[in-house]
Amino acid sequence: MMNDEEVILVNFWSSPFGCRVKIAMEEKGIPYKYIEEDLFNKSSFLSAINPVHKKVPVLVHNHKPICESLNILEYVDEIWSDRSPRFLASDPHQRAQARFWANFIDRELYEASQKIYIGKGEEQVVGKNEVLRILKLVEGELGDKPFFGGDNLGLVDITLVPFYSRFYTWETFGKFSIEEECPGLMAWAKRGTSWYAMANKRPNSGTRRDSGEFESRNPSRYAEGILEPLRGGLQELDHHPTIFSLQKPQELFKRTLVIPDHKR
Amino acid sequence: MMNDEEVILVNFWSSPFGCRVKIAMEEKGIPYKYIEEDLFNKSSFLSAINPVHKKVPVLVHNHKPICESLNILEYVDEIWSDRSPRFLASDPHQRAQARFWANFIDRELYEASQKIYIGKGEEQVVGKNEVLRILKLVEGELGDKPFFGGDNLGLVDITLVPFYSRFYTWETFGKFSIEEECPGLMAWAKRGTSWYAMANKRPNSGTRRDSGEFESRNPSRYAEGILEPLRGGLQELDHHPTIFSLQKPQELFKRTLVIPDHKR
Repeated sequence: MMNDEEVILVNFWSSPFGCRVKIAMEEKGIPYKYIEEDLFNKSSFLSAINPVHKKVPVLVHNHKPICESLNILEYVDEIWSDRSPRFLASDPHQRAQARFWANFIDRELYEASQKIYIGKGEEQVVGKNEVLRILKLVEGELGDKPFFGGDNLGLVDITLVPFYSRFYTWETFGKFSIEEECPGLMAWAKRGTSWYAMANKRPNSGTRRDSGEFESRNPSRYAEGILEPLRGGLQELDHHPTIFSLQKPQELFKRTLVIPDHKR
Repeated sequence: MMNDEEVILVNFWSSPFGCRVKIAMEEKGIPYKYIEEDLFNKSSFLSAINPVHKKVPVLVHNHKPICESLNILEYVDEIWSDRSPRFLASDPHQRAQARFWANFIDRELYEASQKIYIGKGEEQVVGKNEVLRILKLVEGELGDKPFFGGDNLGLVDITLVPFYSRFYTWETFGKFSIEEECPGLMAWAKRGTSWYAMANKRPNSGTRRDSGEFESRNPSRYAEGILEPLRGGLQELDHHPTIFSLQKPQELFKRTLVIPDHKR
């Protein structure tokens, strides 16, 4: 990697899609600047770098923007192909399988899960059943492997693991247990917690347009890293506008707040 | 390419998604067996090769299935990387751009266009406006290039061009002119007609489980190839069940039938 290159991640702190990119950067050990976007007062910068969707995450590499999280993961794997781990195998059929499952999760899981806590009555049941159908299919693909990528994390692992922090919320509002329904997937998720924690070690709640170079791979900050943004989120509940507070009363955000494993 | 390898495309004749794969195989000159799937009486073979979605197209290469049309295009480009054209450039940023636009078209255009002829009144207007928004954004990405892939067709061209045969239907029911609204895109579409014709030269209407090896690159069959399946479609209207006849009266299928350029 050249020293003079500029890598910027534009994100919103609670985005599971942006979390994928953070995990990818962290795993490959690539320093980057982090810019928190205020999704309720979107910047002209966001419109400039993602004019089609105006959504996060966007990776800006040497002034060239790359949009859509799975697209970014492939880009990161290709441009820093000399850095391990590789997120995609070299075998074309294994690559196709990984892309299939990553896309399946990307297209279906978030939308289905939203029904669990935004929906009521029958719609909530529908959401729960859809989420379980998806998770069971995904668990079937995992099989006996430690990770979807085999012995190491790969594209599918990075795509799915940010949702783990929402399992508790889904279970609470859907009244079901993922551990009981999908024990193999839950064991996988626990193996993957360290990636999630590592990616979230950076305090990134609130709105900071440019918080400077990210010192990556600092193990001493793991614990405080995953705690701080969540504590920040809790404190900011009453005055920080959120996706959910625009759709429903404030309490909905409390219901949907990411709850870390160690608080369960 | 090894002589003993087996390549099978499982498809439904009118699928724009399957047409992408046909174009890809045709452009790279890869012989394949074609299996027409009856989507109204899905085979156990389809369930076996695409258990998650049970949809076409599926490419089965040496007994390994690959599902989802864009995923298949990437696979075909990787496994037959020695055959030109390459659908994706070697530069990672150009690859990311192509994947972004191919995914954008894949996720948004079909759904928006369905509203034009399935919807009524306001929904039809919404569909028309969405389709025009998508096409104008795509036209902006094309810019002054002859093709999205530059001087040759690439991933985005192959993703979009099968929809060209539906432009007339969209225009008729939406009461607008793509030529007037997007002249640059229309000029591109006309440049791409030959690919579409080439891919459709094989008579593939009706239900034929296995119609044998496909002799690719036979220029003498171009014209009859694009005509025959459409003529067949017209004749079969009264007795062949279709996607549309299950949703709406038979006449809806007539409205949505692919109308080839030469009949306009």
